[in-house]
Amino acid sequence: MSHNSFGHLFRVTTWGESHGPAIGCVVDGVPPRIALSEADIQPWLDKRRPGQSKFVTQRQEPDQVRILSGVFEGLTTGTPIALHIENTDQRSKDYSEIAERFRPGHADITYELKYGIRDYRGGGRSSARETAMRVAAGAVARKVLGPEVRIRGALVSIGGDWVDPAGWDWAAVEENAFFCPDRAAAARWEERLLELRKAGDSVGAVIEVVADGVPPGLGAPIYGKLDSDLAAGLMSINAVKGVEIGDGFGAAALTGSANADEMRMNPDGTVAYQSNHAGGILGGISTGQPIVARFAVKPTSSILTPRAAVDRQGREVEVQTKGRHDPCVGIRAVPVGEAMLAIVLADHLLRHRAQNPDAPSVARLPRN
Amino acid sequence: MSHNSFGHLFRVTTWGESHGPAIGCVVDGVPPRIALSEADIQPWLDKRRPGQSKFVTQRQEPDQVRILSGVFEGLTTGTPIALHIENTDQRSKDYSEIAERFRPGHADITYELKYGIRDYRGGGRSSARETAMRVAAGAVARKVLGPEVRIRGALVSIGGDWVDPAGWDWAAVEENAFFCPDRAAAARWEERLLELRKAGDSVGAVIEVVADGVPPGLGAPIYGKLDSDLAAGLMSINAVKGVEIGDGFGAAALTGSANADEMRMNPDGTVAYQSNHAGGILGGISTGQPIVARFAVKPTSSILTPRAAVDRQGREVEVQTKGRHDPCVGIRAVPVGEAMLAIVLADHLLRHRAQNPDAPSVARLPRN
Amino acid sequence: MSHNSFGHLFRVTTWGESHGPAIGCVVDGVPPRIALSEADIQPWLDKRRPGQSKFVTQRQEPDQVRILSGVFEGLTTGTPIALHIENTDQRSKDYSEIAERFRPGHADITYELKYGIRDYRGGGRSSARETAMRVAAGAVARKVLGPEVRIRGALVSIGGDWVDPAGWDWAAVEENAFFCPDRAAAARWEERLLELRKAGDSVGAVIEVVADGVPPGLGAPIYGKLDSDLAAGLMSINAVKGVEIGDGFGAAALTGSANADEMRMNPDGTVAYQSNHAGGILGGISTGQPIVARFAVKPTSSILTPRAAVDRQGREVEVQTKGRHDPCVGIRAVPVGEAMLAIVLADHLLRHRAQNPDAPSVARLPRN
Amino acid sequence: MSHNSFGHLFRVTTWGESHGPAIGCVVDGVPPRIALSEADIQPWLDKRRPGQSKFVTQRQEPDQVRILSGVFEGLTTGTPIALHIENTDQRSKDYSEIAERFRPGHADITYELKYGIRDYRGGGRSSARETAMRVAAGAVARKVLGPEVRIRGALVSIGGDWVDPAGWDWAAVEENAFFCPDRAAAARWEERLLELRKAGDSVGAVIEVVADGVPPGLGAPIYGKLDSDLAAGLMSINAVKGVEIGDGFGAAALTGSANADEMRMNPDGTVAYQSNHAGGILGGISTGQPIVARFAVKPTSSILTPRAAVDRQGREVEVQTKGRHDPCVGIRAVPVGEAMLAIVLADHLLRHRAQNPDAPSVARLPRN
Repeated sequence: MSHNSFGHLFRVTTWGESHGPAIGCVVDGVPPRIALSEADIQPWLDKRRPGQSKFVTQRQEPDQVRILSGVFEGLTTGTPIALHIENTDQRSKDYSEIAERFRPGHADITYELKYGIRDYRGGGRSSARETAMRVAAGAVARKVLGPEVRIRGALVSIGGDWVDPAGWDWAAVEENAFFCPDRAAAARWEERLLELRKAGDSVGAVIEVVADGVPPGLGAPIYGKLDSDLAAGLMSINAVKGVEIGDGFGAAALTGSANADEMRMNPDGTVAYQSNHAGGILGGISTGQPIVARFAVKPTSSILTPRAAVDRQGREVEVQTKGRHDPCVGIRAVPVGEAMLAIVLADHLLRHRAQNPDAPSVARLPRN
Repeated sequence: MSHNSFGHLFRVTTWGESHGPAIGCVVDGVPPRIALSEADIQPWLDKRRPGQSKFVTQRQEPDQVRILSGVFEGLTTGTPIALHIENTDQRSKDYSEIAERFRPGHADITYELKYGIRDYRGGGRSSARETAMRVAAGAVARKVLGPEVRIRGALVSIGGDWVDPAGWDWAAVEENAFFCPDRAAAARWEERLLELRKAGDSVGAVIEVVADGVPPGLGAPIYGKLDSDLAAGLMSINAVKGVEIGDGFGAAALTGSANADEMRMNPDGTVAYQSNHAGGILGGISTGQPIVARFAVKPTSSILTPRAAVDRQGREVEVQTKGRHDPCVGIRAVPVGEAMLAIVLADHLLRHRAQNPDAPSVARLPRN
Repeated sequence: MSHNSFGHLFRVTTWGESHGPAIGCVVDGVPPRIALSEADIQPWLDKRRPGQSKFVTQRQEPDQVRILSGVFEGLTTGTPIALHIENTDQRSKDYSEIAERFRPGHADITYELKYGIRDYRGGGRSSARETAMRVAAGAVARKVLGPEVRIRGALVSIGGDWVDPAGWDWAAVEENAFFCPDRAAAARWEERLLELRKAGDSVGAVIEVVADGVPPGLGAPIYGKLDSDLAAGLMSINAVKGVEIGDGFGAAALTGSANADEMRMNPDGTVAYQSNHAGGILGGISTGQPIVARFAVKPTSSILTPRAAVDRQGREVEVQTKGRHDPCVGIRAVPVGEAMLAIVLADHLLRHRAQNPDAPSVARLPRN
Repeated sequence: MSHNSFGHLFRVTTWGESHGPAIGCVVDGVPPRIALSEADIQPWLDKRRPGQSKFVTQRQEPDQVRILSGVFEGLTTGTPIALHIENTDQRSKDYSEIAERFRPGHADITYELKYGIRDYRGGGRSSARETAMRVAAGAVARKVLGPEVRIRGALVSIGGDWVDPAGWDWAAVEENAFFCPDRAAAARWEERLLELRKAGDSVGAVIEVVADGVPPGLGAPIYGKLDSDLAAGLMSINAVKGVEIGDGFGAAALTGSANADEMRMNPDGTVAYQSNHAGGILGGISTGQPIVARFAVKPTSSILTPRAAVDRQGREVEVQTKGRHDPCVGIRAVPVGEAMLAIVLADHLLRHRAQNPDAPSVARLPRN
């Protein structure tokens, strides 16, 4: 069962509410003797941290991670790794409105209908704060995958305004507040988000995550497919409404002759695919090409515009979010998407080893 | 672990290859004392069965299901239900080419790279034949959900040609060979597919599945979200490359004010949502609105056009599929998508009961 | 979840009732390219089969196993292996009494209280017939473990009459109807069981199972311990009421100085344990010594002596089993116990490989 | 997978080493709106805490538990509950000997052989300190079970010296340092343990745990049996080598006529069993009688007597434990055994509700 756990052999269990004393996770199944310290995790958390630009929520906390178990003298021991972050910026503000009124498009009401109770402070368990632990666990997953596998992400669309593939430069991602790989698009987005912020509105976004260096053979038919687990992992991120692999929905518009990735051979016995419509996955198993996935993040429902809503007593009311406000939650979803991709790959790497003890790191033809 | 199982409390394990003696599944966790017979399952299998029109593969088999356990005197007993279908149309044809050459865009090569062996006859385990067992298990899931929950599906796009929402008529779905809810689109598609068939090519498609009557409260944060499990289930279907819930990728182009589903009250204490951008799921939990999901199916890679490929010996070759050919595998994916939606909902209904023994079938406000 | 599945990476799901059309199981997670045919499985089933001596139930069926999937041209493919046995000896007898009356000490009543329905014919799902599929799956597990691991079992006590360790001869196990390793005990048991059979009574037994050649390192703290899984597996066998590892309950009577297994070194760098009180497991992980487990089987409750009971209507009645009768169900539990040991070890072998890709088949000191 | 998690719907994941900064657990699946605070948990921890008598380890720590998530305004919210205990008594002592030498009968060597690394300080992950989190989680499980279910435990044998069933008084358990229900035995044990302590030796023990008020119907055939899960749970406790249910190994010495629990009816429609050889479980499902289980704890291997051992370099050495020493680890296993019983029952209560939404708290005949 998986209420609050994700993965099978590389298994992450998260806990914590936005305004509780702390949030944390347990990462189980990490192989022994991998060098790991807080310094391997902190940079990824810093990347996700709010308050870093005017385009994301202004909550201010250091998000300092501590490793509480599973590492001894700088090496993993094969026992569960507990990661822990104190919540330091739980502003004591007036929650009486949010406690009683359900914001349209927010999990407030479904938690209430399901459980009859919820920690409403800052969104409680449904807060994007939980994703900090995904990023922390993702940093551990990267260590399990090793340096051969490189995982990167970028924001590729804001409110329907897409980056130009011709202008894609991974270096640009580090330069702007949007993780945007296209400098021209970044400039347009900046202008647009300033307007939205002024209007108290928000906007959706699409994120692309890519893993290079993944060996062929990861994934397991029929229900443990790599893309199936990836879809589950990405769809479980707050506000995500869609996931696609490779050409995704675009593939539905193609003919078979246009969509198939033709193959030639590399001199080293690996397959030289001539295109990557498949996004690196065929039949649920990695091909050896880059794994490419995209996911759509809806605009946050916490906006300054008044909206028709209901309250806990079943009365019709209006709600309007006050205070800190995130015009595009999709921005901070970039490092979270990377983390989920890392976690899924680490899990499947361990699963592959279990069933294929002689699994080569790079499969070649002829196979035997 | 979930190599070949799906679901947790309503749990389906499938087995079988396209050209083995039989295919089957075990459905575990079904509550006792539910009326069930082959007659409850067979109609759904008939709907999925190939050979019913010139637009789907011409494989001919009755797909007659047998219940081998778990039902006694017409009622489920709470013990595992084994479902069994003989394979009767395993044509003895020459497989020497497919045994040696990998079709571009097909799982042939990834199975080989992963396992070093594969049953290549008719696609073996990676054949869409496996989906017959999903449909059979889905029929059992429908019985668990009861008559209040209605699950339907439709093909909404072929090769980028979409149905017109204004022309949507569920009755039309039963009338044409495409499960198409728009009669005008169906006419266009017929023409297009005849051309593609002549050209020996194929085309992708998008399917929409909808569940009405789902009570609020199904789904479990954070990693057992209803949409996360639905994404995994739909993405695990053969050839699926994208999944979206509600407005899906469209939501990424909206502003928060446009996307939020405003709320009023119904006289009976249930919430009257004013729109359904969310597709019936907020925070991973059902809202009580219809659950709406779409998934993209790529065009089949088995086409009559020659393509550059490689063989098991690592030689560069050409492949060209011969014989039976499916111009749009997306058509038969409609009943399969319905089945996966039914399975996910049945699983979450049982999960919800476990944690909420007093769960009302329809949640009202005030909750307590 | 695990209603009808056992194991994680080597995963067995069984289905079927005593008097349904068939019983079967799905074995998932088997590594690819292992030679496997019905001939590898049938001998173990023949060993368990009833009707082979006057001391076990006289049900007569060939228990002919068929492999329906997961094997291609004599080799496993990494996909799920479906095993299938037809039920051929479902005598059409009068079940009206057993349908209405609950036998004392039998699962009749608990199935009824839990589910409100049960297939009462021959015990339905609670019949020992289910254990045939464990034996079949155990045969596959042996293939996964390879020839280095040898798993054997013996009956070591009937009704409190124990074998003499000094008289233990594995060869004797094959010579008598009891799988008894002590020829003198076998002679005593024969006499005793003839008397019990005449009296229409039954008796309990203790079985010991031993695995030689298990490498050190299998098992995973804290809840995936090898002994914990073994306890679950053995306790799940019909009529088992106790499980112990190594000295087991005897260890509770020892002092620490007597119980500790002292260590010296073998010339090859492996540890030479001076005794095996631990039964080959320390801290839940295999030591490299033989794994030794014992389990207690209660006497069957289906006896010819009338006993006070109740019926479905809540009336006080008497019951007395008629027809085929098994004076010591513990005898046939020997191959079943072996099978469960094989399944647990195969599962842990795969689990160990996942987390320890460089796991040596025999660990030596110094470890690195 | 279950390396460090136990249970399915009531699911406990523990982490932490003896001498790390803290230990903790995540309890997932707890139903919402149950009153819970640290005050519900602390008393059970206090009962288990070391340093309370001269017969258990003298480690001194307050073991103060904190709830870090999942509880809001005194009620559970249905989200994961994180429990946290700081380690305060990590004496900075010289670990050089224990770091290099493997104690006979201790998990030192198997952790080393499996992982090639271990946190040797105080036993690290293999320390009985982990059981504090089981006790904490068990306290939560008791709240889930409600006041109708009463779970108690007692030490019934030390070094082969058993309590007299005729002298059993539950009140006595609270009065002595051994959780002994027989005052005469407690007096004998005190004398014996003082001698053992002086001799620097240790001794094994047997614990009995009993649950009253368990409704019939908990447990699920075939592999999710209540006794199977209980066996796994108890066997996973440090140093446990045997588990039995009801008469356990004693049942193997009985005839069927002696062992069957005859049945009469209570006036309220529940079954009046005339004995409880079965220990409250038939066919893996609770009967409604008290659940009775016993488990054997071996003598601790940390003794002051020198023993032949080996070191990390593969050299033959002698080891002799120094410092704090626990003459009978079985004593503190009593509250741990109670906790595991509570956890297994809570898990099965939730599982039963999932499959049987109309499950009566007490099943009566006729069932329908």
